[in-house]
Amino acid sequence: MEARHPSESLTVLTDLVLPGETNGLNNLFGGELLARMDRAAGIAAGRHSRRLVVTASVNHVAFNKSIPLGSVVTVEAKVSRAFKSSMEVIIDVWVEDRQSGDKSKANEAIYTFVAVNESGMPVPVPPVQPETELEKQRFDAALRRKQLSLVLAGKMKPHDATELKALFV
Amino acid sequence: MEARHPSESLTVLTDLVLPGETNGLNNLFGGELLARMDRAAGIAAGRHSRRLVVTASVNHVAFNKSIPLGSVVTVEAKVSRAFKSSMEVIIDVWVEDRQSGDKSKANEAIYTFVAVNESGMPVPVPPVQPETELEKQRFDAALRRKQLSLVLAGKMKPHDATELKALFV
Amino acid sequence: MEARHPSESLTVLTDLVLPGETNGLNNLFGGELLARMDRAAGIAAGRHSRRLVVTASVNHVAFNKSIPLGSVVTVEAKVSRAFKSSMEVIIDVWVEDRQSGDKSKANEAIYTFVAVNESGMPVPVPPVQPETELEKQRFDAALRRKQLSLVLAGKMKPHDATELKALFV
Amino acid sequence: MEARHPSESLTVLTDLVLPGETNGLNNLFGGELLARMDRAAGIAAGRHSRRLVVTASVNHVAFNKSIPLGSVVTVEAKVSRAFKSSMEVIIDVWVEDRQSGDKSKANEAIYTFVAVNESGMPVPVPPVQPETELEKQRFDAALRRKQLSLVLAGKMKPHDATELKALFV
Amino acid sequence: MEARHPSESLTVLTDLVLPGETNGLNNLFGGELLARMDRAAGIAAGRHSRRLVVTASVNHVAFNKSIPLGSVVTVEAKVSRAFKSSMEVIIDVWVEDRQSGDKSKANEAIYTFVAVNESGMPVPVPPVQPETELEKQRFDAALRRKQLSLVLAGKMKPHDATELKALFV
Amino acid sequence: MEARHPSESLTVLTDLVLPGETNGLNNLFGGELLARMDRAAGIAAGRHSRRLVVTASVNHVAFNKSIPLGSVVTVEAKVSRAFKSSMEVIIDVWVEDRQSGDKSKANEAIYTFVAVNESGMPVPVPPVQPETELEKQRFDAALRRKQLSLVLAGKMKPHDATELKALFV
Repeated sequence: MEARHPSESLTVLTDLVLPGETNGLNNLFGGELLARMDRAAGIAAGRHSRRLVVTASVNHVAFNKSIPLGSVVTVEAKVSRAFKSSMEVIIDVWVEDRQSGDKSKANEAIYTFVAVNESGMPVPVPPVQPETELEKQRFDAALRRKQLSLVLAGKMKPHDATELKALFV
Repeated sequence: MEARHPSESLTVLTDLVLPGETNGLNNLFGGELLARMDRAAGIAAGRHSRRLVVTASVNHVAFNKSIPLGSVVTVEAKVSRAFKSSMEVIIDVWVEDRQSGDKSKANEAIYTFVAVNESGMPVPVPPVQPETELEKQRFDAALRRKQLSLVLAGKMKPHDATELKALFV
Repeated sequence: MEARHPSESLTVLTDLVLPGETNGLNNLFGGELLARMDRAAGIAAGRHSRRLVVTASVNHVAFNKSIPLGSVVTVEAKVSRAFKSSMEVIIDVWVEDRQSGDKSKANEAIYTFVAVNESGMPVPVPPVQPETELEKQRFDAALRRKQLSLVLAGKMKPHDATELKALFV
Repeated sequence: MEARHPSESLTVLTDLVLPGETNGLNNLFGGELLARMDRAAGIAAGRHSRRLVVTASVNHVAFNKSIPLGSVVTVEAKVSRAFKSSMEVIIDVWVEDRQSGDKSKANEAIYTFVAVNESGMPVPVPPVQPETELEKQRFDAALRRKQLSLVLAGKMKPHDATELKALFV
Repeated sequence: MEARHPSESLTVLTDLVLPGETNGLNNLFGGELLARMDRAAGIAAGRHSRRLVVTASVNHVAFNKSIPLGSVVTVEAKVSRAFKSSMEVIIDVWVEDRQSGDKSKANEAIYTFVAVNESGMPVPVPPVQPETELEKQRFDAALRRKQLSLVLAGKMKPHDATELKALFV
Repeated sequence: MEARHPSESLTVLTDLVLPGETNGLNNLFGGELLARMDRAAGIAAGRHSRRLVVTASVNHVAFNKSIPLGSVVTVEAKVSRAFKSSMEVIIDVWVEDRQSGDKSKANEAIYTFVAVNESGMPVPVPPVQPETELEKQRFDAALRRKQLSLVLAGKMKPHDATELKALFV
């Protein structure tokens, strides 16, 4: 299969924070943001693979900044690296100031999706060919994250996780 | 106020069609699409004016093509023309084929928003400066639509609607 | 097929404005009202035709008055005229004052629905026989609106839109 | 306070059964119907009392007939009797056949609401003056139900429940 | 079929009160609580019978205490008695104080469910064997409630309702 | 502050998978499960700290098993370890077979919450005192995960992450 660029899977979901989506502090409820990121990331994985996809794991989400009621929130998802049937998707979340129009980063998340056929069995996906500097860094880091997941799940021995081990030794 | 380009208000809302958003024929429910277009168009009007905005009217929505469960739907909204405190927003809706990745046009809609202050009173907005050929056509047609609204509401005499009258005489 | 009166398709949807349905100004969110009107109008079109119906277009919605949180909102929909397989539905929206019980008009909307069979193909619908003065006015105006839609969509030449042309010449 | 007729509080909520509101058998989910009846009954109690109202109890709901996906459901609520600050509301639920247009009774429910001021304290409400035969029967039966509630809650001795006792002795 | 203990059907649904679930007084909306209780009670009835179940009736719900926005609400449901294919489920609702951690009773409700097969026809369910003192009281009272329902529905003559009659004579 | 046991923060959220919460394969939608886990974990963190809490990060979620429409899903959350103002919460998700009543593990997730005051500033929380074997293992692993987060975020040098480093060297 021919490699695809991260830009080919770019998915943008811009939406408001409505009152029914807030927590007791009048900010966007964490669970609602997790759901929006899951939908955007799933679409990005579908655009990369042109297959049905299911969420396999959420590897990391940092809620750095609360997002107040009435904000405009932009969720941007791109496939950062592919491994056989799985795809790592990185999601950047931006919130913009109504008056100045400035956008600031509110959250960052990493999800993994698996491409499946109609019976739910995994199917292979095209490799990723990164282009920008940031895409290349994220592509490289994806391998370390993959090894880390395998080590934490007991499916890889720590000393075989060569990329990751290099960090500590 | 300095004019803004339609591209500065471009708002993209990409999302899935989930089972809870379908009608009895397993297609996206009309009311749900109207709500998504309203949110995207409201964000576009807010980006153009950098003000609070409220929906003033829905001038036209054509549902040309049904959108099946599981589709990826992209709603794109841009301010086409501004009049004192009101903004016409044109929304294009695309649905994409999972396997080929081809996008086809599913709907087109025209909404009008008004910029307001915290007390809900109208406030002026910047003019629009169209750039592409399509943006220019839509900018010109917006005046005819405005006149038509005024005529139909009995707020302008037909023979004063010069742009519109030219169509019929 | 035997003609039906608009009163036979009258559909009333009375409901509250709950916090999850409001915008940043604590008023009913435009998108939520569009969705309620779509459901009521679709039921009215189904009662007139006794068929499955799908939304074909939204021809006009004017949001004249904001509707605050906690209001009682009454959406009333009636088929105003039928054309082969399509039906124009006019929707009146009322909001009532809790203390006096007075109702005032908040919005008015015009939607078009098409009757379809199980495969989604258009099927003919009965004609409309208006009774009250208002029903007769709306029945007549429906033809002008139909011609206007066709002209704007480039499907009818302006000088063939006899009803509409009379307004301008 | 002047008495009001049940017809003055009549509230009609007609709506569809959408896929997101069904249970595993493709029928309207019980909890969703309970919520719709609560909203309609609360509006009826508000129309009778012209006050804020809160749900005090649900006295009886019989689910006689399942309501399939795609149905048109009409919820009709009317205040049947008032006691100081509380109002008994009877709700009739109808489902209609798309082809014949026939309506059949699907459910019946009895809710009690209390009128409150802004601090949530009970305030008096007008009495009910029944007009039709059915309204009179429901008005009389409301007293027996009231006594039954008090007996079951241990707030009235059985032999003081004169209306109710007459049934058994 | 072997009898089951009420503890075997115990179902706990702990959840927050979010802004989209409140009424105009900033308390949990009655209809939302009715829906949560219906879901928990349906799961309890499914655990007792290991069958599909449908809501047959809501026999009594008392809203004793309003539940403010942001509260933690615990809904606990247990089958109290079974009759052929039907099961009475008693639901206790608790709200807890964030600072002290104290739980207080907010509501109590009684629902009836029927076990059905895939075609929706009733099927027999195991009997209930109560263990604690409270379970035994509720088991006994369930028979009186059953007779009362039958009497009120005109399906049992008052003088045959021996358990219930004893209360009044 | 006095230490609390993980059992004191145990939060159980049992609920159904309804049609409006499924994806295109008729399984529970990933985003909906993420939201349910966030609510249950937030309640557990609130019970441990008796404070307002906000989601700080999602550290790991593995979707091992799809959860079909109509399933009964039990989400169990417990605070596994506390660090100044933050709490690690581990969530176990179970799905049960209707006929046999057997429960199997469907997912496992790790979220971090921070306790805050009314202005949103972090406040200290009590330490955790694990009791069972599993609670002790999770308590120990929480420190390695904490170090890992700090290393990955560039806030701790790898050679200072003594617990974690031991894995690789």
